[in-house]
Amino acid sequence: MNKRNAFYAQSGGVTAVINASAAGVIETARAHRARIGRVFAGRNGIIGALTEDLIDTSKESARDIAALRHTPAGAFGSCRYKLKGLDENRAQYERLIDVFRAHDIGYFFYNGGGDSADTCLKVSMLGAKLGFPIQAIHVPKTVDNDLPITDCCPGFGSVAKYVAVSIREAGYDVASMAKTSTKVFVLEVMGRHAGWITAAVGMAEDAGTPIPLVLLFPEIPFDETKFMAAVQARVEAVGYCCVGVSEGLQNAEGKLMAEAGTKDAFGHAQLGGVGPLIAKLVQDRLRYKYHWAVADYLQRAARHLASKTDLEQSYAVGRAAVKLALDGHNAVMPAIVRVSDRPYRWKIGIAPLTEIANREKMLPRDFISGDGYGITGKARLYLAPLIKGEAPPPYRDGLPRYVRLRNVAVPKKLAATFDI
Amino acid sequence: MNKRNAFYAQSGGVTAVINASAAGVIETARAHRARIGRVFAGRNGIIGALTEDLIDTSKESARDIAALRHTPAGAFGSCRYKLKGLDENRAQYERLIDVFRAHDIGYFFYNGGGDSADTCLKVSMLGAKLGFPIQAIHVPKTVDNDLPITDCCPGFGSVAKYVAVSIREAGYDVASMAKTSTKVFVLEVMGRHAGWITAAVGMAEDAGTPIPLVLLFPEIPFDETKFMAAVQARVEAVGYCCVGVSEGLQNAEGKLMAEAGTKDAFGHAQLGGVGPLIAKLVQDRLRYKYHWAVADYLQRAARHLASKTDLEQSYAVGRAAVKLALDGHNAVMPAIVRVSDRPYRWKIGIAPLTEIANREKMLPRDFISGDGYGITGKARLYLAPLIKGEAPPPYRDGLPRYVRLRNVAVPKKLAATFDI
Repeated sequence: MNKRNAFYAQSGGVTAVINASAAGVIETARAHRARIGRVFAGRNGIIGALTEDLIDTSKESARDIAALRHTPAGAFGSCRYKLKGLDENRAQYERLIDVFRAHDIGYFFYNGGGDSADTCLKVSMLGAKLGFPIQAIHVPKTVDNDLPITDCCPGFGSVAKYVAVSIREAGYDVASMAKTSTKVFVLEVMGRHAGWITAAVGMAEDAGTPIPLVLLFPEIPFDETKFMAAVQARVEAVGYCCVGVSEGLQNAEGKLMAEAGTKDAFGHAQLGGVGPLIAKLVQDRLRYKYHWAVADYLQRAARHLASKTDLEQSYAVGRAAVKLALDGHNAVMPAIVRVSDRPYRWKIGIAPLTEIANREKMLPRDFISGDGYGITGKARLYLAPLIKGEAPPPYRDGLPRYVRLRNVAVPKKLAATFDI
Repeated sequence: MNKRNAFYAQSGGVTAVINASAAGVIETARAHRARIGRVFAGRNGIIGALTEDLIDTSKESARDIAALRHTPAGAFGSCRYKLKGLDENRAQYERLIDVFRAHDIGYFFYNGGGDSADTCLKVSMLGAKLGFPIQAIHVPKTVDNDLPITDCCPGFGSVAKYVAVSIREAGYDVASMAKTSTKVFVLEVMGRHAGWITAAVGMAEDAGTPIPLVLLFPEIPFDETKFMAAVQARVEAVGYCCVGVSEGLQNAEGKLMAEAGTKDAFGHAQLGGVGPLIAKLVQDRLRYKYHWAVADYLQRAARHLASKTDLEQSYAVGRAAVKLALDGHNAVMPAIVRVSDRPYRWKIGIAPLTEIANREKMLPRDFISGDGYGITGKARLYLAPLIKGEAPPPYRDGLPRYVRLRNVAVPKKLAATFDI
């Protein structure tokens, strides 16, 4: 076997634990120096490959690579950039091959979601279509939890834990204030297409900690009258109500509520998201005092509150990706396979990218309660292990001690540049 | 000394650690049974006293009272309700005396901020003015950190830690995305009148972790041109910028930016807060892609990320309040006295309520950097110890295990009711 270098890149929205996957890839590659030379990371994802802006991860200490496990976001930079089809933009692929050949790259590890799986699949075909042999392995990552085949997606469990903890804490707060002040609290969460994160909000509440919750899923068209009745019923019964609303909530016409909203006096679109919109509606219709929060990036960057299950799986898929490559696989993705619910056991399986790319796994309807505002036992059974366990980062002076890599550039070998 | 019962109530906005003060009061009172009978808590604050809706804390187990230390928000309910002056509403005070006399209450512990200190001061005068002897001790609490005399206010350190950690984490996220996507991230934080919490955002950044930050303090009138230049300079130098903005940011005319904003097509005031407003302005003027978050209650309810210093001080002021009462004090508040910065040492002092009530401690101008967008070394020296140390709650099944007290009502003794 000849020894070749590896390329690793982070793609799309980052997560609290995507760097754990990077650590898994790099540490496992380092443990197989006979087969894998150096791991080059793309600076800002695939753009780094196209522009020959590579980072030499061999310049990083073992300690710093290990610290990636407790550092959120993308240590090498990510990007939102989708490769076109091989036939549409052949120049892109030829450029990739030039860069890969110049740096003797034979392994391509791409850490991302559904769009990225598509890119990874295209790269995997470079051997067959353009005669450049490369093994492309996709490393799953998305807070949206919408990749098919894999039981869950690394990154999701930590967001799920964040939103559940946050609404539980806010629930205690609102309960304290409801007598004379705030009666309704609205938290807007991510997940534009599928309601996985919205469902996770429902985990805040359990038999030991009842919290009057109303969830607004992107899958359930917003029905104002019914929603107001649900909120009012909870406030009248318990004194307050917490609402978890997906940023992707749609109206009956299938339009995003956040976009269907109003324009301001200058004709600007609604500044606030759907969270403040719903909160204001509650006040207009029911006259309850409200508060709202939009966690936005905080929810996906919150490494301080990461799920231990999620962290372990994120590391495991990075490690597995390298092992799959060493075993000769191409165009595959390590997938999380759930072996049992209670006790929760999982293992790594192999999913072909042809079955991953461009497919979204939607939230099953039987995860949403009959009235559309809560989650079912089945959803709880699925979600419970994913938020389990704590894995706090080290702290110094009261703040998490996250690593910043040196990110030393690999000297360029090509005369030609490439415009993105 | 005759044995009398105690009244304890939580007032105003709650915090991640106000229940630790409750634990301090109740546990210390229980340790002095010869002098203090039972501790009755007001259900929903002072309203519970006026309506004779008292909670018998002696019905709670020692374990549950201890669990208050790790449970956010107000376990007995709080309220926003300010007593009028003795001369303006004598009936309120006579009612209080009726309730206190009926339940043999000789100690009044009031856990709140500046308005509450004023109420506590008025209650302390019941002996002199209306002939009902009672000792009123104020237990400091406010995330706004604006009580005078005390070096800091219990509740503030945990919010400070939350906002610093959150913007540090979001900073890592934006740094990852900035090449092709989000370049500016805006976090709106609490603190309408004084910029203590805004200043705490600045702690996210230090020599080991530089983050391009711009802080918008309520003390510094918003200057759009200058602000845009500051954001642009950071984006051009580092690639991205994080903005921490106070909900109380004002324009040059002294009007709240959040209120000075636009109205929507229906004439409703701006739904979003000042956070989205600033974010949108950045896009309009500089064309940078933005994201924004409004943490709202999440920041003050986040017991999972409480500061250990803050937790210890919150418990200590509760304990000290009872000791002050036992020592015969009236109309005072235990205050945090800073003994030294490095190492940080503090003790409890005694502050007269006449010097606390209705006075706000503003952020000193020399805590804000010359350009108005950052914090000084002096601010860091002050803030550093307040966010130090972690004190995570126990977790079960991936979620913090917060206590819910039984909150058993004390049987009413008065025939008369009282309308709030």
